[in-house]
Amino acid sequence: MTALRAGIDLGGTKIQVVVLDESNEVKGQCRVPTPRDNGPQGVIDAMIDAVKAAIADAALSETKLVGVGIGGPGQIDPVAGTLSGAPNLPDWLGTVKVVEPMRQSLGAPVVLANDVQVAVIAEDQLGAGRDYSSVLGVFCGTGVGGGIIINGKLWKGRGAAGEIGHMVVEPNGAMCGCGRRGCMEAYAGRASMERKARKMVDDGAKTSLFKIMKEKEKTNLSSSVWDKALRHNDKVAEQLMDRAVWALGIGVASAINLLDPECVVIGGGLGSRLGQPFVDAIIDAMQPHLLKVKTPPAIVLASLGDLGGAIGATLLLDGNN
Amino acid sequence: MTALRAGIDLGGTKIQVVVLDESNEVKGQCRVPTPRDNGPQGVIDAMIDAVKAAIADAALSETKLVGVGIGGPGQIDPVAGTLSGAPNLPDWLGTVKVVEPMRQSLGAPVVLANDVQVAVIAEDQLGAGRDYSSVLGVFCGTGVGGGIIINGKLWKGRGAAGEIGHMVVEPNGAMCGCGRRGCMEAYAGRASMERKARKMVDDGAKTSLFKIMKEKEKTNLSSSVWDKALRHNDKVAEQLMDRAVWALGIGVASAINLLDPECVVIGGGLGSRLGQPFVDAIIDAMQPHLLKVKTPPAIVLASLGDLGGAIGATLLLDGNN
Repeated sequence: MTALRAGIDLGGTKIQVVVLDESNEVKGQCRVPTPRDNGPQGVIDAMIDAVKAAIADAALSETKLVGVGIGGPGQIDPVAGTLSGAPNLPDWLGTVKVVEPMRQSLGAPVVLANDVQVAVIAEDQLGAGRDYSSVLGVFCGTGVGGGIIINGKLWKGRGAAGEIGHMVVEPNGAMCGCGRRGCMEAYAGRASMERKARKMVDDGAKTSLFKIMKEKEKTNLSSSVWDKALRHNDKVAEQLMDRAVWALGIGVASAINLLDPECVVIGGGLGSRLGQPFVDAIIDAMQPHLLKVKTPPAIVLASLGDLGGAIGATLLLDGNN
Repeated sequence: MTALRAGIDLGGTKIQVVVLDESNEVKGQCRVPTPRDNGPQGVIDAMIDAVKAAIADAALSETKLVGVGIGGPGQIDPVAGTLSGAPNLPDWLGTVKVVEPMRQSLGAPVVLANDVQVAVIAEDQLGAGRDYSSVLGVFCGTGVGGGIIINGKLWKGRGAAGEIGHMVVEPNGAMCGCGRRGCMEAYAGRASMERKARKMVDDGAKTSLFKIMKEKEKTNLSSSVWDKALRHNDKVAEQLMDRAVWALGIGVASAINLLDPECVVIGGGLGSRLGQPFVDAIIDAMQPHLLKVKTPPAIVLASLGDLGGAIGATLLLDGNN
């Protein structure tokens, strides 16, 4: 009998599940598109099916599911087991109970946390931050999220700590998805970058970004679209990426000056797709703003890759996180 | 026999000493100008004399000095007991041993820490932050310093955490004393504000700031000078204070978005002199930038006043700080 823990990375595009055995080895996995047709119930059903499929994928003779951890893209109430404020999930209006229906269906304890917090815990414990006791995580995807590890533990503040994407990098600057101006995310989040690219096209700029998007059968400018456009020296893509890196340089340096951590982990879709050159560009952009310029923290690329979120979600089950 | 602990707030202008008894009551104090004539040795001698004078001021029949805590304006090496990078102290070049000569002369253990960290610990444990377990301290004086209390303990990072004054509030903005551009301190630190005022006068602006400075027999624009000029509706003073509050609104809101603390304590010379209206103005200036605008942290004025630094320095002796 193998005791398995499942970890779910619930995103607006896909649901990624892994199952780990007692020695933290990935024994099975399943990845499905996030269903768009049946609202929250459809998403919850898909998560349940994907956990079962990942257990089947493990192809072990006898197994027992001992717990499920979920990282979700929104605000979590850990006591009520609900997820709210998740605009990237289909018809996810108001506050949705996630833990209870999954627990009933899968017959195992279910723990829910915020996806970025899960990713930061994972990088701190298993990934690029594992040699450091204080880590600032900066995750660039649709938005820019973050997390702070202090003395080896996630600092949650009053529940919303780590919102590095909403540090102001330019007063009265670009409009952010949060409705405020000048946030780092307004320059370095993919949603904002795409809005700006569309506006530039409307204003007559030429770019291959949307052509690549269609070729890749995407509905938005994913990290792989940006990557390909940059590899083809697309001027609009370069300009918007320079702008993103400029904002990250200011915001991350400010956060370092405030927190003085041992390590900064750069991750998220853009981070994992663009890799070390992206990290190097951010390091360069930070130089004019860093107080301890001679003794900066380690600035490293997230190392857990695509499975990081799902593996991290299993760490929620150990009670310390 | 009364066991006394001494706390020293070492500043560029004055040395403030208090002595506390076992029940943390202030039994005696002494305040002397920081001597300018004899370099570090003169400052150390003055601190020793001031501790003796504060003990004499306590007027107790029998006393024993059991420890001395010092908050100093610069970088501290707590192991070597040295203070360096203290441009506000006279001829304080390089790294100066402070702990050892004082210990020998006073015959009691001496503990040295950074003055802003001491002030934040004091506000957290005894002052305006005492009801909260996470506190961001923002101290506006010659510069803008800060400190972060997480789970009731000062977060030191790699030694320099809390440098909120060097968060960037305007890319490529005003020149800061640190040599970088656009730091919050470049707008909200008195040294930067004075530089800007002098430049405005050079450019033909009219202000009573420097007349008030002379009337008060000050050599620079102290907090009391700013206060008086503002009370007289001096336009240059108002303009520069608006600019300072604008920068504080951006920088402090960004720090709140990142840390999500329960409480922010506003202190320092400008804070204690300008009082609640200054705090209210910062609260207003933060509104456009706060992510949790409906549930902000408590933003409160430092409550320990002039003796806060010296009282806080005695807390260094309890080993927990």
